[in-house]
Amino acid sequence: MLKRYLPILTWLPHYHKRLLGADVLAGLIVTVMVIPQSLAYALLAGLPAVVGLYASILPQLIYTLFGTSKTLAVGPVAIIALMTGAALSSVAATGTETYLQAALILSLLSGGMLMVMGLLKMGFFSNFLSHPVISGFLTASGILIAVSQLGSLLGVESSGFTLVERLFTLVPNLATYNLSTLLIGSGTLIFLITMRLRGKATLHKVGFPLFLADLCAKAGPVFAVVITTLITWHWQLAGAGVAVVGDIPNGLPALSFPWGDYSLWQSLLIPALLISLVGFVESVSMGQMLAAKRRQRISPNQELVGLGACNLAAGFTSGMPVTGGLSRTVINYDAGAQTPAAGAFAALGIALVTMSFTGWLYHLPIATLAATITVSILTLVDIPMLRQTWRYSRSDFAAMAVTIVLTLGEGVEAGIISGVTLSIALFLYRTSRPHSALVGRVPGTEHFRNTARHDVETASNAALLRIDESLYFANARYLEDTVYNLVASHPELEHVVLICSAVNLIDASALESLDAINARLKDSDVKLHLSEVKGPVMDQLKKSDFLEALTGRVFLSTYAAWREFS
Amino acid sequence: MLKRYLPILTWLPHYHKRLLGADVLAGLIVTVMVIPQSLAYALLAGLPAVVGLYASILPQLIYTLFGTSKTLAVGPVAIIALMTGAALSSVAATGTETYLQAALILSLLSGGMLMVMGLLKMGFFSNFLSHPVISGFLTASGILIAVSQLGSLLGVESSGFTLVERLFTLVPNLATYNLSTLLIGSGTLIFLITMRLRGKATLHKVGFPLFLADLCAKAGPVFAVVITTLITWHWQLAGAGVAVVGDIPNGLPALSFPWGDYSLWQSLLIPALLISLVGFVESVSMGQMLAAKRRQRISPNQELVGLGACNLAAGFTSGMPVTGGLSRTVINYDAGAQTPAAGAFAALGIALVTMSFTGWLYHLPIATLAATITVSILTLVDIPMLRQTWRYSRSDFAAMAVTIVLTLGEGVEAGIISGVTLSIALFLYRTSRPHSALVGRVPGTEHFRNTARHDVETASNAALLRIDESLYFANARYLEDTVYNLVASHPELEHVVLICSAVNLIDASALESLDAINARLKDSDVKLHLSEVKGPVMDQLKKSDFLEALTGRVFLSTYAAWREFS
Repeated sequence: MLKRYLPILTWLPHYHKRLLGADVLAGLIVTVMVIPQSLAYALLAGLPAVVGLYASILPQLIYTLFGTSKTLAVGPVAIIALMTGAALSSVAATGTETYLQAALILSLLSGGMLMVMGLLKMGFFSNFLSHPVISGFLTASGILIAVSQLGSLLGVESSGFTLVERLFTLVPNLATYNLSTLLIGSGTLIFLITMRLRGKATLHKVGFPLFLADLCAKAGPVFAVVITTLITWHWQLAGAGVAVVGDIPNGLPALSFPWGDYSLWQSLLIPALLISLVGFVESVSMGQMLAAKRRQRISPNQELVGLGACNLAAGFTSGMPVTGGLSRTVINYDAGAQTPAAGAFAALGIALVTMSFTGWLYHLPIATLAATITVSILTLVDIPMLRQTWRYSRSDFAAMAVTIVLTLGEGVEAGIISGVTLSIALFLYRTSRPHSALVGRVPGTEHFRNTARHDVETASNAALLRIDESLYFANARYLEDTVYNLVASHPELEHVVLICSAVNLIDASALESLDAINARLKDSDVKLHLSEVKGPVMDQLKKSDFLEALTGRVFLSTYAAWREFS
Repeated sequence: MLKRYLPILTWLPHYHKRLLGADVLAGLIVTVMVIPQSLAYALLAGLPAVVGLYASILPQLIYTLFGTSKTLAVGPVAIIALMTGAALSSVAATGTETYLQAALILSLLSGGMLMVMGLLKMGFFSNFLSHPVISGFLTASGILIAVSQLGSLLGVESSGFTLVERLFTLVPNLATYNLSTLLIGSGTLIFLITMRLRGKATLHKVGFPLFLADLCAKAGPVFAVVITTLITWHWQLAGAGVAVVGDIPNGLPALSFPWGDYSLWQSLLIPALLISLVGFVESVSMGQMLAAKRRQRISPNQELVGLGACNLAAGFTSGMPVTGGLSRTVINYDAGAQTPAAGAFAALGIALVTMSFTGWLYHLPIATLAATITVSILTLVDIPMLRQTWRYSRSDFAAMAVTIVLTLGEGVEAGIISGVTLSIALFLYRTSRPHSALVGRVPGTEHFRNTARHDVETASNAALLRIDESLYFANARYLEDTVYNLVASHPELEHVVLICSAVNLIDASALESLDAINARLKDSDVKLHLSEVKGPVMDQLKKSDFLEALTGRVFLSTYAAWREFS
């Protein structure tokens, strides 16, 4: 029991020296790599850069205790930072005390929700974020984030959380661009893209061993940070209008509780729920993917508990909402992390930097961080997926398109809520008009297929009607219409057999309709039969009076019904 | 085309004398019978009694033009009046000009919505009011209405639209009861109940022919109205504190348009939608039932158009929201109405009364009308249905119970919205954790059933897994878990056959999961096969790359797969 909720108890007792070496190395690499992105994502959310560091310390340590993934690294991530910024700016102005407070409240709410969902085993909840909605949401968020960074890359003011707002505030200010910022920003951007696309191959070609070439290519952002910081420091560009990170107080965050108004808590409820679900889906799908590669397993419900604890920790230590991040996790995995201890070492590393070396970050240009964000989120934009989905299913595409358009046009919350709502509505609509088929026997077999698609044998006085959907309130009336039309257009019928092989559920409304069909057919001297009723459905029908009222029989197989009537 | 939208063109050209006699008689009977209930339902909605008459004239005439049911009678009905009262009292105080205006706006909104739904053929929308929700809603509304009439029966003030509000305003005033009102109210109540339960049999026993006995029993409310009006007039009880209908202006309503604030229209949108849906369901299910008795058909989508036109007419002529009413339609049907012309004659009759004879209604006691309402709505309360639904399905019962509790405790809107939401949520939850079964061959046949329920043959190296649900985003991950667990617990497996006889849909998320399952099984040297994939599903799979990537085959029947592996 204790082991279920504290997975550290399953691996720590077997910890040994060989693991320690690998984990310390991974922790060191992660420390260096994630500092730039942690600062960047805090800025993306409209928060002081240091918040990104705070949110990478205690949450990651807590995950070591509660997490079931061996390699997941927890901290601020791009999408969650974007959603956080949108949520906070709807309740407070950037830079105010309330804005900071709201970030903590958001973390606590999200942490509480995740934990409750985990304890109640409600991980299935996240399944309602369908694949097209998630992928549309990531694409649109990627575009939104890229546009939001454009201002920082050029040294121009811009604000807002929809595409239109961003562009409307950005374009009029374009003439005020800062040349030094533009050079640093675009230079970093080109460097990072080159490193990402060619870095590994080129370095390997000039003689680096493969592992080191890979590591150096991945460390592109670190090099960019060091070089542009040195340039900005050397020429004192901060005085020439280049925005820099500036003063960061040395020291660890104090433990605190963000009291705030009741109304503030209330208005952050929906954003917290969405952030929780999106964060969970991002984290758990990556965790599962990496676990599968090493033949390990993770427990989604315990992950909810773990991520919940991480967000509570973030809320108590001046952080921001966190989740398992794509890039930091991949760095950790590739750096050879063996157990969650690697995460703990990285957390300690970042704590050390926060305590003593934040002064080194003073001259780090914001434009460098903007370039880092832009390059890393462009991987989220998945245009081929749009084409694939269009080809496969128009209704999946519709959900995806609505998510993208509304995320860009109305913001992240509107986008994701509309996408989920539309997915569910389309599914319900589809199941409310079920496919059904008159089937006949494939000659010489006991197999029955659609008369319209296959060359099959039929009987003249009996219709074999296969209903391709569970019968429930949304399609109960449709079923009645289908059967009545069938009987009306085939006056020679004496028997109607409903083949229930695809009927997984008959609810009370559908039972009412079946009763009505049975009675109406009786009036027309047509008998109603059922075949291939599944065990669970049959169990339930036995609890009603329908089977006694049924004018016909219940056949185990369609073939048995066929033998009776042909 | 014209005939589709104006069904009167289908029957009027064939109209002849014999029909005329029957329709005029039915019209006359309906005129007399529905006047008391029309007044009563207007009062129930918190409106002046005469509004009930106005709403019974033009709407009924319009239905004659647009309706597809031969016998439906349109006008104010109990449930819609209750919902109207709840909606209006949330935006204005009873008795004010705005309250009257809001009633007209509500009619116009509801009329417009119904008409648009009809023209867009969105009648299926009402299917989402499942049977348990409707029946729970009717039961709770019946109780609410009965309690709301208690005050009028006793001559005591009460108000509110939830059970608690009603009781809290009623109980403290109980001591102020009016004896004359109490006697009239309880006397009428006992008389009406007796007439309903025993009237027909007793009258038949004392020598009335069956038809007349039935008519007289149904005319109970009319006798009660006449007698109590005469009593109140004779002893001038209106001066002694008995509430009466009072002055009603003679004359037809003027045509008018209720301008009102934009915000008033906006806040009535949701109530109008709910009233439209509930009214449509009540009307169409009764229309279908009666049409079936005479082997006629009605067109649900044209009914939407027709009811929409009726409500627009009510909104323009000082009326209130209307729909096809249970009791008035049954009276019309039993009185022998042959065509919608009967409705037109009833409308003319009520118009005549409204023009000239409203003075006769001055001394009609409100208590009499309250007794009429109480008796007629008690038929809505269906307690045995609660037990039946509990026995049949816990989740249907949950939807029903929530509808009842919230309708009583929070009002009609909260009740119906929660009921519908819960039905949908429970359906989605159920489909998100699909039943699946390992099946084997029923010896000697080509039929396959659950190994856990039937004595069947299985193969050691191949698992035949029947998935009992369409595969879509909500259960895609669940499917992955099911298959991985199956393979993990049966290391001897070389083949997994997914039997898709119950899979009616594979959406983009599920396709993603199938791809993942296929790849993961390939890593473990297990081949994935499909069988009994339905035509429409196969068509869609062909649009993706899944079939090329599939490690195994697609079998037409499970038996074909069985022959291959056993």
